[in-house]
Amino acid sequence: MHEKLAGVFAPIPTPFNADGSLALDKLADNIRIWETMELDGYVALGSNGEFPMLTADEKIAVLDTCRKAMTSDRLLIAGTGCESLAQSIDLTKRAADVGADTTLVITPHYYKNRAGDATQINYFNAVADASPMPIMIYNMPGYTGVIMSTAAVLEAAQHDNIIGMKESTTNVVKMAEIVIGNAPNFTLLTGSASGFLPCLSIGVAGTISAFANFAPERVQAVKRAFDSGDMATAMKLQHNLIEPNKAVTAKYGVAGVKAMMETRGLYGGPVRDPYPQLTAAEREDLMAIAKKYELI
Amino acid sequence: MHEKLAGVFAPIPTPFNADGSLALDKLADNIRIWETMELDGYVALGSNGEFPMLTADEKIAVLDTCRKAMTSDRLLIAGTGCESLAQSIDLTKRAADVGADTTLVITPHYYKNRAGDATQINYFNAVADASPMPIMIYNMPGYTGVIMSTAAVLEAAQHDNIIGMKESTTNVVKMAEIVIGNAPNFTLLTGSASGFLPCLSIGVAGTISAFANFAPERVQAVKRAFDSGDMATAMKLQHNLIEPNKAVTAKYGVAGVKAMMETRGLYGGPVRDPYPQLTAAEREDLMAIAKKYELI
Amino acid sequence: MHEKLAGVFAPIPTPFNADGSLALDKLADNIRIWETMELDGYVALGSNGEFPMLTADEKIAVLDTCRKAMTSDRLLIAGTGCESLAQSIDLTKRAADVGADTTLVITPHYYKNRAGDATQINYFNAVADASPMPIMIYNMPGYTGVIMSTAAVLEAAQHDNIIGMKESTTNVVKMAEIVIGNAPNFTLLTGSASGFLPCLSIGVAGTISAFANFAPERVQAVKRAFDSGDMATAMKLQHNLIEPNKAVTAKYGVAGVKAMMETRGLYGGPVRDPYPQLTAAEREDLMAIAKKYELI
Amino acid sequence: MHEKLAGVFAPIPTPFNADGSLALDKLADNIRIWETMELDGYVALGSNGEFPMLTADEKIAVLDTCRKAMTSDRLLIAGTGCESLAQSIDLTKRAADVGADTTLVITPHYYKNRAGDATQINYFNAVADASPMPIMIYNMPGYTGVIMSTAAVLEAAQHDNIIGMKESTTNVVKMAEIVIGNAPNFTLLTGSASGFLPCLSIGVAGTISAFANFAPERVQAVKRAFDSGDMATAMKLQHNLIEPNKAVTAKYGVAGVKAMMETRGLYGGPVRDPYPQLTAAEREDLMAIAKKYELI
Repeated sequence: MHEKLAGVFAPIPTPFNADGSLALDKLADNIRIWETMELDGYVALGSNGEFPMLTADEKIAVLDTCRKAMTSDRLLIAGTGCESLAQSIDLTKRAADVGADTTLVITPHYYKNRAGDATQINYFNAVADASPMPIMIYNMPGYTGVIMSTAAVLEAAQHDNIIGMKESTTNVVKMAEIVIGNAPNFTLLTGSASGFLPCLSIGVAGTISAFANFAPERVQAVKRAFDSGDMATAMKLQHNLIEPNKAVTAKYGVAGVKAMMETRGLYGGPVRDPYPQLTAAEREDLMAIAKKYELI
Repeated sequence: MHEKLAGVFAPIPTPFNADGSLALDKLADNIRIWETMELDGYVALGSNGEFPMLTADEKIAVLDTCRKAMTSDRLLIAGTGCESLAQSIDLTKRAADVGADTTLVITPHYYKNRAGDATQINYFNAVADASPMPIMIYNMPGYTGVIMSTAAVLEAAQHDNIIGMKESTTNVVKMAEIVIGNAPNFTLLTGSASGFLPCLSIGVAGTISAFANFAPERVQAVKRAFDSGDMATAMKLQHNLIEPNKAVTAKYGVAGVKAMMETRGLYGGPVRDPYPQLTAAEREDLMAIAKKYELI
Repeated sequence: MHEKLAGVFAPIPTPFNADGSLALDKLADNIRIWETMELDGYVALGSNGEFPMLTADEKIAVLDTCRKAMTSDRLLIAGTGCESLAQSIDLTKRAADVGADTTLVITPHYYKNRAGDATQINYFNAVADASPMPIMIYNMPGYTGVIMSTAAVLEAAQHDNIIGMKESTTNVVKMAEIVIGNAPNFTLLTGSASGFLPCLSIGVAGTISAFANFAPERVQAVKRAFDSGDMATAMKLQHNLIEPNKAVTAKYGVAGVKAMMETRGLYGGPVRDPYPQLTAAEREDLMAIAKKYELI
Repeated sequence: MHEKLAGVFAPIPTPFNADGSLALDKLADNIRIWETMELDGYVALGSNGEFPMLTADEKIAVLDTCRKAMTSDRLLIAGTGCESLAQSIDLTKRAADVGADTTLVITPHYYKNRAGDATQINYFNAVADASPMPIMIYNMPGYTGVIMSTAAVLEAAQHDNIIGMKESTTNVVKMAEIVIGNAPNFTLLTGSASGFLPCLSIGVAGTISAFANFAPERVQAVKRAFDSGDMATAMKLQHNLIEPNKAVTAKYGVAGVKAMMETRGLYGGPVRDPYPQLTAAEREDLMAIAKKYELI
């Protein structure tokens, strides 16, 4: 699976109807459109997928819909991490049953004073032992407040069934340390489109980034230029990702991603309450940025 | 209800069997013991109740068990906050149906860049509008990474159905600001036994603290001395809470609380995986501290 | 000296002329006015004294002026901490030569990764060994980014020549731990007028607070009510300190203190560049707060 | 000067004798050795130069010694920032008098609540107006606790006499934003050898890094490989910088740099008290790392 992980993945949003209910038909439509775009696969039920806002049954319905709508052999990566180990294992098994290829498991994080490296290693080993499919680590300190250290990642990476990681910071030094750590069968992906080229420059294999939901070709272009050794082009392309990417991450979050998706014919729709929708002014600001970078 | 909130509440742990399953019989037994102790009520499904580790159905079973086992007219406060507004409202209604008196609703916190004061105010107003019982705000930055500001708290406090708050920091200045803010029908409780007397000194009404699960009389004694104007005694009693309280909060967390409960004939049992149980050495350390303060 | 430390101290600002030069005549005038106010002593060259903005010679001139203008036997406490141990010792000796009674020595803090507890303990012991007068520790994480732990404070407190500490956070639990630590000849003062009563409630002896520069009687009144056991009055007085105190600390800093001093006939004048003076709007806001609390 | 800034600079340590006094003769000797190494210039009186531990006169003596010992036309960059604007300007003028080419001015940072972007912009403009030589901004949040924002940097960069910046974080996204901001005559250098290649990949011009004090050829090799388009080699070289570089920055700081310098025939000597010297075990650990990477 490692060759297939070295690419650009869309952490797809979960579509909701105006009343907040799950819009599975819209999700299937979106998948069909994404299948025509330059993507290497999908992460469903990540942070962009609003996983904390969904019930377990809703999560499985999302995965089932994705798999059935997919026509390619691209990877379907499922977010199945819960605070409880038992719930994480249960959801991982159900995700495998409906066709997920691998899973991105977020670090447990509520009880921060008890969520250190030893807890993380034990947890990931236990999920990996029980999982019918290989698993990946999802390190997302910006939302969890927990940092899984380089040493802990490298220890977990020794498990045969733990095959990779999404690192959502732009800590390039930590990423380099993981790349050069003794973990040959462990693939590192970055969560940041804004820092994609710097990550590539020290050996990161690919990215799972919000930007890939609505402009994957822009992200792929950075990788292609880098792979071909054309650093001048890669740098220029990278520079053009930064401002629009910040708008759909730090600034407007999932609501911004959904608004940008609509510019590509994808269904966006609302985020779930209580997180705020874009105001008219925010949408206008976002569209001005998109226009500046010729995204629309 | 406000008079009844001015007291000492136990944020009761949820008991599990050795295999991690819910031990409702043990919970009922515990309640019967707590009913004989000097307590003003119970908070079920708070952080000490391991709420992030439970399914919605498990949560309702916990509340139902508590209410049925209770024989007093003490307050039963339910933790019903979820990331999703719809889930929070649904759980709050179900909690009221099984007999909760009020609810402690944690601030939404996963999407930190979109969880500012405006989001919090809208959220609490929406829960309060829909709730059949009065609600309370649960501010717990140590675990959530989100701080609801004084101004936001005071704005939410204008809602008739938002009657109070548990502030889990020891920020005495913020607490004083809330006390003197224009919110006459809003009761402030502290989450910290270690800082209880300082909180009382600026007008906080009571406390919901882990310590009250196994030694409520020690916490009540601080309040009684304070209320009677005997500050010298209050100070001495307060000083003796600090070291053992830190052991069951910052140091050992819920696993420590459960171990201490066993010294009082209550059922403790394991915490849910992946959070760690106490090692033998940790248990020994905890018991040494308990002995030093004549808790055992 | 310990009885004399249990009081209210003004961390006096250093006056500058419009061109930024030291205004020693104004300082002498201010001292004469403060001598008529309800104060237990002065801290010169603390954070409110803009010590990082002064040369060593200017610092000695400030101390010399204070001592010569003082007519009472109140304490003169000098801020003499520098990053370099040798400079700290040199300045401490010179301060003693011009009549300082004791010194408040800030924790070294620039090289944060090398400024842990061991460094702090060694440093304070070395200053105490060399100092002709007793010394005090100045812990100010808000400005230094370094926290000297409770354990480190209590270890340093074993030195005969280390007699106390100013803790500038409102961490009441830490302060209680120091109070009950095994350090009988060590006096703890709080830097926060906003949290003065909570600090008193767990055994803090007094305060060095910006507010005491222009309204010491308000701060003394809290202590007097507390000492007499009238907690209701103490609480009411404490509540009235919070908003105006925040205005002259977190909000406007030394520039705010200097503006408030002018309302009492003291010389305020500018702060040193590059830190900003109050704008007209900020001054107006400050005066409105002062009026609301009948400080003017 | 901009072409000359696009290189690798050593932030040279200040040598002290065993008694802590300035060892200017050793400094001159060191300069003569560095002049034979692959370096583009020197930063004296930066963080590695222990600038907070020196008096103003000592600082000028250091600069004077450097200039007189230098035989090349490499750049001599002087750290001249103080908290006080007047002191910063005075020191900058004196530095120019003894032959500094430009100056690296640290952000004022003690009064953090008054040290926001407006303060920084005013400060740097004022220093630049008064300085007889061009100046550079030194952003070092790890030690100062203050972050000068991208917007503030780009505004300051409009001043004709503000020609560049050392950014000491590894925030590659911020650095990219500065590179693409509208500031054509502004050169960005990174302070991190560990993240040098990622920084180069988005347009950073060079580096001022501790590592260059004892192995500049290793740092230059990364840049040369990058400049020649040989990314595979650049990546491999970069990977080998990380572990030893962390040892002389986060882990052992200036004491570590001085120990490593001794392996190249340079004088290291002690750091100034109270910051700790290396213990025997720490030195052994450092040398083991150096050996692993064939630095010794």
